[in-house]
Amino acid sequence: MLIDHYNKVRQHSLRLAEPLSDEDCGAQSMPDASPVKWHLAHTTWFFETFILESMEAAFAPFHPAFRVLFNSYYNGVGEKHPRAQRGLLTRPGMDVVRAYRANVDARIARLLAGELARGERERLTMLLALGLEHEQQHQELLLTDVKHLLAQSALFPAYLDNAAPPAPQAAQSTAWLAFDGGLAQIGHVGDGFCFDNELPRHPQYVAPFELASALVTNGEYLAFIEAGGYRTAHLWLAEGWDWVRSQQLACPLYWQRDDAGHWQEFTLFGLRPLDWQAPATHLSLFEADAYAHWAGARLPTEAEWEVAAQGVAVEVGQLHPAAGAPGTGLRQMFGRCWQWTSSSYAPYPGYRTAPGALGEYNGKFMLNQYVLRGSSCATPAGHARASYRNFFPAGARWQFTGIRLARQVE
Amino acid sequence: MLIDHYNKVRQHSLRLAEPLSDEDCGAQSMPDASPVKWHLAHTTWFFETFILESMEAAFAPFHPAFRVLFNSYYNGVGEKHPRAQRGLLTRPGMDVVRAYRANVDARIARLLAGELARGERERLTMLLALGLEHEQQHQELLLTDVKHLLAQSALFPAYLDNAAPPAPQAAQSTAWLAFDGGLAQIGHVGDGFCFDNELPRHPQYVAPFELASALVTNGEYLAFIEAGGYRTAHLWLAEGWDWVRSQQLACPLYWQRDDAGHWQEFTLFGLRPLDWQAPATHLSLFEADAYAHWAGARLPTEAEWEVAAQGVAVEVGQLHPAAGAPGTGLRQMFGRCWQWTSSSYAPYPGYRTAPGALGEYNGKFMLNQYVLRGSSCATPAGHARASYRNFFPAGARWQFTGIRLARQVE
Amino acid sequence: MLIDHYNKVRQHSLRLAEPLSDEDCGAQSMPDASPVKWHLAHTTWFFETFILESMEAAFAPFHPAFRVLFNSYYNGVGEKHPRAQRGLLTRPGMDVVRAYRANVDARIARLLAGELARGERERLTMLLALGLEHEQQHQELLLTDVKHLLAQSALFPAYLDNAAPPAPQAAQSTAWLAFDGGLAQIGHVGDGFCFDNELPRHPQYVAPFELASALVTNGEYLAFIEAGGYRTAHLWLAEGWDWVRSQQLACPLYWQRDDAGHWQEFTLFGLRPLDWQAPATHLSLFEADAYAHWAGARLPTEAEWEVAAQGVAVEVGQLHPAAGAPGTGLRQMFGRCWQWTSSSYAPYPGYRTAPGALGEYNGKFMLNQYVLRGSSCATPAGHARASYRNFFPAGARWQFTGIRLARQVE
Amino acid sequence: MLIDHYNKVRQHSLRLAEPLSDEDCGAQSMPDASPVKWHLAHTTWFFETFILESMEAAFAPFHPAFRVLFNSYYNGVGEKHPRAQRGLLTRPGMDVVRAYRANVDARIARLLAGELARGERERLTMLLALGLEHEQQHQELLLTDVKHLLAQSALFPAYLDNAAPPAPQAAQSTAWLAFDGGLAQIGHVGDGFCFDNELPRHPQYVAPFELASALVTNGEYLAFIEAGGYRTAHLWLAEGWDWVRSQQLACPLYWQRDDAGHWQEFTLFGLRPLDWQAPATHLSLFEADAYAHWAGARLPTEAEWEVAAQGVAVEVGQLHPAAGAPGTGLRQMFGRCWQWTSSSYAPYPGYRTAPGALGEYNGKFMLNQYVLRGSSCATPAGHARASYRNFFPAGARWQFTGIRLARQVE
Repeated sequence: MLIDHYNKVRQHSLRLAEPLSDEDCGAQSMPDASPVKWHLAHTTWFFETFILESMEAAFAPFHPAFRVLFNSYYNGVGEKHPRAQRGLLTRPGMDVVRAYRANVDARIARLLAGELARGERERLTMLLALGLEHEQQHQELLLTDVKHLLAQSALFPAYLDNAAPPAPQAAQSTAWLAFDGGLAQIGHVGDGFCFDNELPRHPQYVAPFELASALVTNGEYLAFIEAGGYRTAHLWLAEGWDWVRSQQLACPLYWQRDDAGHWQEFTLFGLRPLDWQAPATHLSLFEADAYAHWAGARLPTEAEWEVAAQGVAVEVGQLHPAAGAPGTGLRQMFGRCWQWTSSSYAPYPGYRTAPGALGEYNGKFMLNQYVLRGSSCATPAGHARASYRNFFPAGARWQFTGIRLARQVE
Repeated sequence: MLIDHYNKVRQHSLRLAEPLSDEDCGAQSMPDASPVKWHLAHTTWFFETFILESMEAAFAPFHPAFRVLFNSYYNGVGEKHPRAQRGLLTRPGMDVVRAYRANVDARIARLLAGELARGERERLTMLLALGLEHEQQHQELLLTDVKHLLAQSALFPAYLDNAAPPAPQAAQSTAWLAFDGGLAQIGHVGDGFCFDNELPRHPQYVAPFELASALVTNGEYLAFIEAGGYRTAHLWLAEGWDWVRSQQLACPLYWQRDDAGHWQEFTLFGLRPLDWQAPATHLSLFEADAYAHWAGARLPTEAEWEVAAQGVAVEVGQLHPAAGAPGTGLRQMFGRCWQWTSSSYAPYPGYRTAPGALGEYNGKFMLNQYVLRGSSCATPAGHARASYRNFFPAGARWQFTGIRLARQVE
Repeated sequence: MLIDHYNKVRQHSLRLAEPLSDEDCGAQSMPDASPVKWHLAHTTWFFETFILESMEAAFAPFHPAFRVLFNSYYNGVGEKHPRAQRGLLTRPGMDVVRAYRANVDARIARLLAGELARGERERLTMLLALGLEHEQQHQELLLTDVKHLLAQSALFPAYLDNAAPPAPQAAQSTAWLAFDGGLAQIGHVGDGFCFDNELPRHPQYVAPFELASALVTNGEYLAFIEAGGYRTAHLWLAEGWDWVRSQQLACPLYWQRDDAGHWQEFTLFGLRPLDWQAPATHLSLFEADAYAHWAGARLPTEAEWEVAAQGVAVEVGQLHPAAGAPGTGLRQMFGRCWQWTSSSYAPYPGYRTAPGALGEYNGKFMLNQYVLRGSSCATPAGHARASYRNFFPAGARWQFTGIRLARQVE
Repeated sequence: MLIDHYNKVRQHSLRLAEPLSDEDCGAQSMPDASPVKWHLAHTTWFFETFILESMEAAFAPFHPAFRVLFNSYYNGVGEKHPRAQRGLLTRPGMDVVRAYRANVDARIARLLAGELARGERERLTMLLALGLEHEQQHQELLLTDVKHLLAQSALFPAYLDNAAPPAPQAAQSTAWLAFDGGLAQIGHVGDGFCFDNELPRHPQYVAPFELASALVTNGEYLAFIEAGGYRTAHLWLAEGWDWVRSQQLACPLYWQRDDAGHWQEFTLFGLRPLDWQAPATHLSLFEADAYAHWAGARLPTEAEWEVAAQGVAVEVGQLHPAAGAPGTGLRQMFGRCWQWTSSSYAPYPGYRTAPGALGEYNGKFMLNQYVLRGSSCATPAGHARASYRNFFPAGARWQFTGIRLARQVE
């Protein structure tokens, strides 16, 4: 039943906030990140604005100010609270936001249970699916944003302080896997949900290439650091070199050395020794590209990645990933780290946006951003697929982002 | 008894936080303002660091990280958490900060009740007095900072939503009062507490001058606005004109018009119609100076203000000020608004700072700041006196700051 | 003879500086633009550093400091004078830079006339070709940069004050021209010179599309302005809308209204009435994309543009363009304005950079820049071709950049 | 004759520009500094705007655009060319500016030679005096600004490359000289010219104090550096410490070490070894205050400085200073370095500005600036006096600014 799926996804968001105090839920560590409370309210605003406002018989907003307060970037809906000031919204409090969620959930349930014309029900079903996928995207952001917030603290608090952190990974060798070239079909196919940016499915010519069977590990990335990677200009894109120098960077976000010189990493389980076999993560595209350059390889294009992923089972990562299957087959395509591609985020040929404010969902961001493929340890179950296109600016590091290498066939 | 005074001042801080949620207490609206929680913790840190650390027999900190987290600006104590990121300290939570306060209060009480050498007890008495005056300064800042935070909200929440707001003021005329010139004695005198910046008392020549019997009212300030004051370059200091233009200012902080065009003011009681007889407040030195220029007058020097204030009874303002005494005598010297002077904040001749980190309390700020005299509606009872020197940069507006005019005797 | 071509290109640079005073040649109007003097010196530095330094028998630099002063962005060569401070290089003066040019020219001539091993001569020929194409790129930049400089002046001086400005264009209709889809070959082919970023030639699948027969005119662009284009959020990319709003833009760079409200344009011939039939220019990618959106079309991809351009004769634009051929055939592909494409600047599959510092020429800029195709009125004769890839960030407006529309075949 | 004085001062400005190329005269190294050409034009604009415009019979401007281009900060005159873009004014060229100067000079001479009503002649005399003192102020700025410009060059060119640099100073001991306290008269007295900020003369109480007989030398300042002065927080004002840290400063402006580790100083004679006996210069108030703190002394107030200077002969410094008189008397009050005082720049009691735009000359800058007394090696002959008040913000270093210590009498 749709209502069961709705309730399950909605409850998962609240469960993610459970380990946190109301104070934790209100703070914003940087303009790119949002408070947990804001995520909980904005995802609710999405259902209220795009479904209830047009489909409810006698629509009255839960609170008139919320239309502005919890609008993220939809100019078509009207004014927006300034993004960098979301952490100042101490009112409404978490209790009011929880009531807001319960109120909207009840109204959605009522709408679903009621009578609707055929076209209306189809539209409702479509919008609910979109709203739930939207909420799942925010579930991942909620985790990356709260990790970034907690990392600002000198106390290095663990988000999950009762759970056992993942066991260290066993060493596995990485191999180059060859893929034939040719005219491939790229983009979503089938009846399942997809975002508009995955359409239309279309032909794209791909030359023969090789892809690494696994992600770059922390140990491999350390070798790059120790070889002076962060100090070697010719490995970097021009903008990347400026970025490294102006911020004086020398390692991934969340890495630090303890007083004895041992590398540690801040995780959702607190500060922990680095697991050298685990995939390196929290890397920018600049770092991924420089690493690939240093390793004599390159990043895959998104078409190459998708060609390779077609037919691979989606591995649910979450925060307790099962160890990958052994062997030299294609591993870690899903459930570990989003994988930077060299492809700028652009519309597929014939791409169309939805009419109205929902048309702002994806299309207007197709500039100066780069596509990431796969999924991460923080991606909710059921949200990933081979045609999924995630995207971030080249300097973003607070997402669970890593490196899968590619290379040209000689 | 000293311990009673200690407990009373300390409890007052907690009482000020009572109308607020934990979420309200954690947010920071701008780098100049601090979260309520931070004020509560920092004032406690002051007692722990400057008293317990050196006087307690077997000193152990309540939490080792607090030494850094709640240090405001004392380089002599060591590292400091970045000022602009105080709002990210969701840990420790308010419950831990309340426990911190209780712990330090108990240890101070034990220290006071115990045996101490004569010199040690004197030192303890002196440091406790300083710590309590310090806490009173933060009580006022707590109120100005929370007002600034709540003003960022589109909901315009009232800090005091159960209390009755002050009744409108009755109209009273303002007169010019003449003061003789001569060699005056400036600075603190007597046995009571004073900060080091009020010493030494010293002679200063003051020419004859006249002082306005009352503060500039909202109604008088409105006339300046309506006469185009914010658009008239020649009224402003050069830096003030740049400030007005770059921020596109046209009225005091917290003034706004409602949809019908009526002026309103955001207050600790929420958004309210302006009281035209009440003193205009939340003005920068730039605005105060331009107003004075427009009115054909000038701001007083701090010496002039102090000469006039010597012998005036200190009126307790707090947030429910009693109406000022009628007549043409000197009114509103205390308890309404801090009054900008034209004097830059500088050491008195022969000024000496305390040894060690406490020497950073005042002296190092004696540059590019201007002296304010009197006290405001938010100043705690017992904290004001004629020789008290408050100081802020010329552009500060979030304090309760207003204008008393002076003029030269022709 | 190669030396004749060398001398001709080199002299053309000096000729471009002739209408300017030494003062004009020294100033830098923004970090993205360089002084004319710097262009003259840097192009010379290129020959000295990449040819003479390695091939001259007893190499001694013309001036040891020039290696740093006139290095643009080659980290492999060493330190660089800060880009934003090129306008502070009043020393060396223009006379010294002219002597520098003469000195290097004589040494290049001597090298060419002397004996060289077979491999050495081939390398010299290749490097000279690269150096001359590099100089031609700077000839265009010299013109766009001096135009930007002169535009800062309240005097609106003409660069060419003795020359007759171009006559107004005759009206011509624009048609949609259809192109078949299929697997196209993209990239440079043949023996002529090309930059490394045009290689390797490779297959790319292109769906059927239509291309406008001519560029968007000033008159057409005015209609967009008058329809409120600069105030309509949904037409713009998210980053473009921020760009428009933060800079408060309402028309192309160099457009302004005179006191009577008539539109004028600052040109290299001074301030002139707009020619409504001429191609609109000095547009950012943001503006080009919003215009296309408003017009119900889109920008072409670089592959589409190249497919259409294959076989089109290169029209020499320069600053006195001959009128385009009449009819509905493909016009204005070259010689008018560089044409924004929707393609981000990225390496072709199998792209390889040159070894050493020359490898920095193109590859390291392949991020957050967008490809422009064609050539402009300021492109030197012989420099353009169908496979040429120009590139700039999306907000750049000071180049001669315009719009050719494309659309999907329904 | 007034005309002779006029011509002499005016010609001196041109003479100062003689060692420079037109290119040197056009560049602007930072917003605080102006191009030499701009100084030459602005000082001429001053005569044209404030004298010719109101007194010439049939006034017509030399060029209508110059009223805006060469207005520095007089809002009462109208619009101003943006300060930070003065270096982009390649037009008018130096030749036109020279013609502008000659034109205005001829018109001033005609006005002076003609008939004028009694009041008009008095007004003309007063305005000419002001204009010439204004020009002398810019003569000093011209030198400090061109020094700053040349210092940006990796070639370290000498402004005076034909002149012999000053010989090293002989060592002389510095003594503390005692001054009685009491009610002093401060401000200009007598018939000579003074600026409005030196008036009115007024009584000020000064406590007994001691003043150093000479300026702090380079050698003494080096001891402060070597004692870790730039790394010791408690020596600095809070704002000074932020300034040192954010700019990572470790020595005075223009000091640098050569490859062998020897200290050198960039001067108007080029890069030269430091003269350890010469006064340390190009110091900010922050550095002066920290040095004084370290030395167990303080900076004088401007009243103390003026009390000490009353009766001291004004030494003409220029750029070839004669060695100071030997002995322990008060030396180097004039002609070496401007001497920072601890006094913020504020109006004297009863200060009045001139009516109209000339009222903007001094008064509007009386905030967040600090007074310097004396004169420097770059001050023109006849321009200095005991009551002269120079002023700059605390962080300014590109003027010839140094340190004279004071201390309290115990």
